[in-house]
Amino acid sequence: MDLTEIKDPSFLKNMSNEELEQFAAKIRQFLIEKLSVTGGHLGANLGVVELTLALHKLFQSPKDKFIFDVGHQSYIHKILTGRAGQFDTLRQYKGLCGFPKVRESEHDVWETGHSSTSLSAAMGMTIARDLKKEDSHIVPIIGDGALTGGMALEALNHIGHEKKDIIVILNDNEMSIANNVGALHNALGRMRSAGKYKRVKDEMEWLMKKIPAVGGRLAQTAERVKDSMKYFMVPGMLFEEFGFTYYGPVDGHDFSALQENLQYAKKTGGPVLVHVITQKGKGYQPAETDMKDRWHGVGPYKIDSGEKIKPVDAPPAWSEVVSSTLQKKAREDERLTVITPAMILGSKLEKFQKEFPERLFDVGIAEQHAATMSAGLATQGMKPFLAIYSTFLQRAYDQLVHDVCRQNLNVMFGIDRAGLVGADGETHQGVFDISFLRSIPNMVVMMPKDENECQHMVHTAVEYDDGPIAVRYPRGNGLGVAMDETFHSIEIGSWEILKEGSDAAILTFGTTIPMALQASKELQAKGISVKVINARFIKPLDERMLHELMSMNLPILTIEEAVLKGGFGSSVLEFAEENDYQNQAIQRMGIPDRYIEHGKVDQLLEEIGLTKEQAIQHIQRMLPSKQQRA
Amino acid sequence: MDLTEIKDPSFLKNMSNEELEQFAAKIRQFLIEKLSVTGGHLGANLGVVELTLALHKLFQSPKDKFIFDVGHQSYIHKILTGRAGQFDTLRQYKGLCGFPKVRESEHDVWETGHSSTSLSAAMGMTIARDLKKEDSHIVPIIGDGALTGGMALEALNHIGHEKKDIIVILNDNEMSIANNVGALHNALGRMRSAGKYKRVKDEMEWLMKKIPAVGGRLAQTAERVKDSMKYFMVPGMLFEEFGFTYYGPVDGHDFSALQENLQYAKKTGGPVLVHVITQKGKGYQPAETDMKDRWHGVGPYKIDSGEKIKPVDAPPAWSEVVSSTLQKKAREDERLTVITPAMILGSKLEKFQKEFPERLFDVGIAEQHAATMSAGLATQGMKPFLAIYSTFLQRAYDQLVHDVCRQNLNVMFGIDRAGLVGADGETHQGVFDISFLRSIPNMVVMMPKDENECQHMVHTAVEYDDGPIAVRYPRGNGLGVAMDETFHSIEIGSWEILKEGSDAAILTFGTTIPMALQASKELQAKGISVKVINARFIKPLDERMLHELMSMNLPILTIEEAVLKGGFGSSVLEFAEENDYQNQAIQRMGIPDRYIEHGKVDQLLEEIGLTKEQAIQHIQRMLPSKQQRA
Repeated sequence: MDLTEIKDPSFLKNMSNEELEQFAAKIRQFLIEKLSVTGGHLGANLGVVELTLALHKLFQSPKDKFIFDVGHQSYIHKILTGRAGQFDTLRQYKGLCGFPKVRESEHDVWETGHSSTSLSAAMGMTIARDLKKEDSHIVPIIGDGALTGGMALEALNHIGHEKKDIIVILNDNEMSIANNVGALHNALGRMRSAGKYKRVKDEMEWLMKKIPAVGGRLAQTAERVKDSMKYFMVPGMLFEEFGFTYYGPVDGHDFSALQENLQYAKKTGGPVLVHVITQKGKGYQPAETDMKDRWHGVGPYKIDSGEKIKPVDAPPAWSEVVSSTLQKKAREDERLTVITPAMILGSKLEKFQKEFPERLFDVGIAEQHAATMSAGLATQGMKPFLAIYSTFLQRAYDQLVHDVCRQNLNVMFGIDRAGLVGADGETHQGVFDISFLRSIPNMVVMMPKDENECQHMVHTAVEYDDGPIAVRYPRGNGLGVAMDETFHSIEIGSWEILKEGSDAAILTFGTTIPMALQASKELQAKGISVKVINARFIKPLDERMLHELMSMNLPILTIEEAVLKGGFGSSVLEFAEENDYQNQAIQRMGIPDRYIEHGKVDQLLEEIGLTKEQAIQHIQRMLPSKQQRA
Repeated sequence: MDLTEIKDPSFLKNMSNEELEQFAAKIRQFLIEKLSVTGGHLGANLGVVELTLALHKLFQSPKDKFIFDVGHQSYIHKILTGRAGQFDTLRQYKGLCGFPKVRESEHDVWETGHSSTSLSAAMGMTIARDLKKEDSHIVPIIGDGALTGGMALEALNHIGHEKKDIIVILNDNEMSIANNVGALHNALGRMRSAGKYKRVKDEMEWLMKKIPAVGGRLAQTAERVKDSMKYFMVPGMLFEEFGFTYYGPVDGHDFSALQENLQYAKKTGGPVLVHVITQKGKGYQPAETDMKDRWHGVGPYKIDSGEKIKPVDAPPAWSEVVSSTLQKKAREDERLTVITPAMILGSKLEKFQKEFPERLFDVGIAEQHAATMSAGLATQGMKPFLAIYSTFLQRAYDQLVHDVCRQNLNVMFGIDRAGLVGADGETHQGVFDISFLRSIPNMVVMMPKDENECQHMVHTAVEYDDGPIAVRYPRGNGLGVAMDETFHSIEIGSWEILKEGSDAAILTFGTTIPMALQASKELQAKGISVKVINARFIKPLDERMLHELMSMNLPILTIEEAVLKGGFGSSVLEFAEENDYQNQAIQRMGIPDRYIEHGKVDQLLEEIGLTKEQAIQHIQRMLPSKQQRA
């Protein structure tokens, strides 16, 4: 069968285990080939081939609802629901999304990207099902890493309490994106080693029901004896304590074991948790053997060797620059500690961890805890640096408002993947942080123009002792500029003139600077002289420079790769209003009030008009009106 | 001893249990008397008198660090650290803060207000202590309710993993603000009923160490036998699974038991959890017997009867209006469900719960789960209404961005306590929501001018089927206006002219409308005619009306009881910029870029200049400049 001919998963119903195994191999081959060209989340998907097939065989999607936590492990689900033919366009502009997408298929009932949302979503769907008196299975599939996210634990607590029918599949691959962290992880380890007690457990439960009811003190003791016996039999006591019926551990690559346990789960009432053990990268040698999980999200690679196809001599990644600067600073400043929510690899912190193992804290997927723990460190005179993606910092918004900034603590934030991120798409665009950060008192927010300025900003942050400070930087690699040998501090709130000009000024920062310079150059050729300013402090603004510009009534164009509503440009409007520059011409460019999907960053910028051409038009539009006023 | 003479807690060291008991009675009397005048969190503090005394007797604050979760139970701590003399000013303007406050005392090492932050803060302090090679005890005190917050669970997981010395006091009063929720609660119940097994446990552990080490399969079995025996002996297996040593349950009103267990905890290495059972309201009959916990946060009351001293014939509370409207709508619309994060009392949802027990979901202190569960409900065609305080909605910011608004789901938000809240102070001011909500695509945000409009807005939200929609309303009571018998929908994005005027316009909404009308009236007397507009849609703006105003070049003053940065006023600036109204005079009034402490709302408004006088001045300032331009 050609995978592209699949319309829906109904054909699985009649497949024998042998046929399923052959089919699984075919899917693996397909994924390895397709992703070698497009890139994508190979490791996670290779780990859930059998699990996804078993789920689609035993349940009836879309009547039964699969909710993929995080969602990058939904490729097999996409293949089984008629989308194999679109894999050449995976994660590309207007192409197949790398995550579940409601408009792609009726089988996608919940969209994801961030982790730990599946249990809450499933609980909502379960309540809806029961209120509507419908009959279906709600099946969230969550990884062991995502389970440590606070929202997932909140949901676990609520689900166990409500006792509604819900089947949680715990996809335990002994790692989230990298090594897993936390007491839950240790508990899962104990469960894995405990072997298969399911049948024994059933017999025990039958037996225990036979124990006659007794009253008084004896009842309590009897109850505790039962619990104790159960604990002996059931490796998943932790989940039983949370109110779930536990099945497992199940070998996630064994069709027979998977089907047997899923059958049990379907027949059991109330909250059920099926603990499935899978291996990330299963069936592809290079991914199987890489313990550091570099096959989590990959670019193109050579199939035979697993060698990544990378641009030659690329400049260092932004996160690499940040990380190595931290390493240098840590040698001279004992207060410096680094906190990461499960992103040692993503934030390129391996070398830092190697040199300072006792000063690097990976807290797992737990952004809220990461932020407030950093605040706790800062109360004791330490200088914590929280390395976190812009989109995940959203999870710690209240911790910023309530714990870090309200107490004005010296917490540093390295906001990675700021701006458009490309292939991961709308769930991961780092475009809200400017709006949500700049309305919080005491916060300083910077963005460097290149990797050299980036190292000085990290240095500046470490030297700064007046409260929270953030440096945001984009995904990908720097510009390839020369790096200064020694660090220097940048004055807080100071901008930099990159090009002089007398007819108008562009205020911009970070990734949009080259475009602004190019626009200025082209306008120069038309006889229009445009000043370009590196507005490297997003908060506080360089008020001295703004006064200078506005007192000259120079038309101002602001450009930012972030949402326009409440963004940097708005802060310039606010400045003009607060200082009574009523006739000041200001135009803003940025991201419009809608979500931006996946694609190459250039394509996305083009789509939303964040281009040199638009910048030139904006400047030209302001100039005549300036002349009219003069 | 006069309580006001206490300078620090050192005098406790030599007190006998009998003396402590007498002293506890004195503190209770003090609290009951003082709070009968000022109001405050009586119930929680009466519950922790003995616990706080025992902690200060056995530990050495400020060297040892107490971190009070939520913090409203820190009154006894304040008394013991030299602040009894300030209790007449409790929660009043410039007076004693109702929560821990670093600048009040060196014994306050962590400020709180929101729940579930203590474990993360404590972990940060613990890491700092160990890196600095200092020697002190870090002692977070957390309630059973706060423990279900996602951040606390994230921290529990991390603390259990890192194995550092930390002593968690679980203050279990069997309720958070109201009834507790969740599987954890049930697990705590089992622990409470299990009695005191601590000594048996110690003996068991000694015995188990004697079991000789064996290899192979037998080792696993031996390990499981040990675990099983431990489970039989230890009621706190759940916490042991998380990597903690569990002590308890301890009677939190028995000095001898408290001290014994705290001594054990001090001697034990690694993470320890002491499970203390307390009774909220202990020692004050009216508070002890009120099972609904109306004594959580109280206003003034009569000491003898416990009768609350309330204004006679006050208009209904805003939350009451919202809740009763929901009740009416629920009768005709089966899709309507209500979700609350542990705020049935605060959000006045008791009657709704009584009429629709199966459509009201109290998820406990779990704002993230509440928001995403609501999104899950909405995917299935339900109409969830999440009743949540503005300040707590901050906890669900990512869930708004990633789950609700990105999927454009029909989730309704009732944003309670929007604007300044008064006595609870800076941790609870609901002043950020406009800035953080309006930068999220697809979000509709409304605020009513009075309780009659409020009911129509709730109706409008229920009828609206195009995505997320929020109605925000202040703390306290409505204006006492007549209520319409039948509901009507308000056109999305439509403002209302409250008073005509030709010289300038004020755009405002909610609580600041009466002030704006008064300003307009006084300006009228000076011959200046000011239009007052009820800008009841904060997003989307009434673009038609804005075009009208701006094409007339009418000077505009925006007034909002919310932060200025990125707020409603900024959205009006943005509109002018986007539509090329370059010479439009706009001035904004709102909350400046700093945190606002506790006090009466009027006092706070005066302090930040959000007054009629300022409004008049702003208008007058704009008028001459308008004339100059004309």
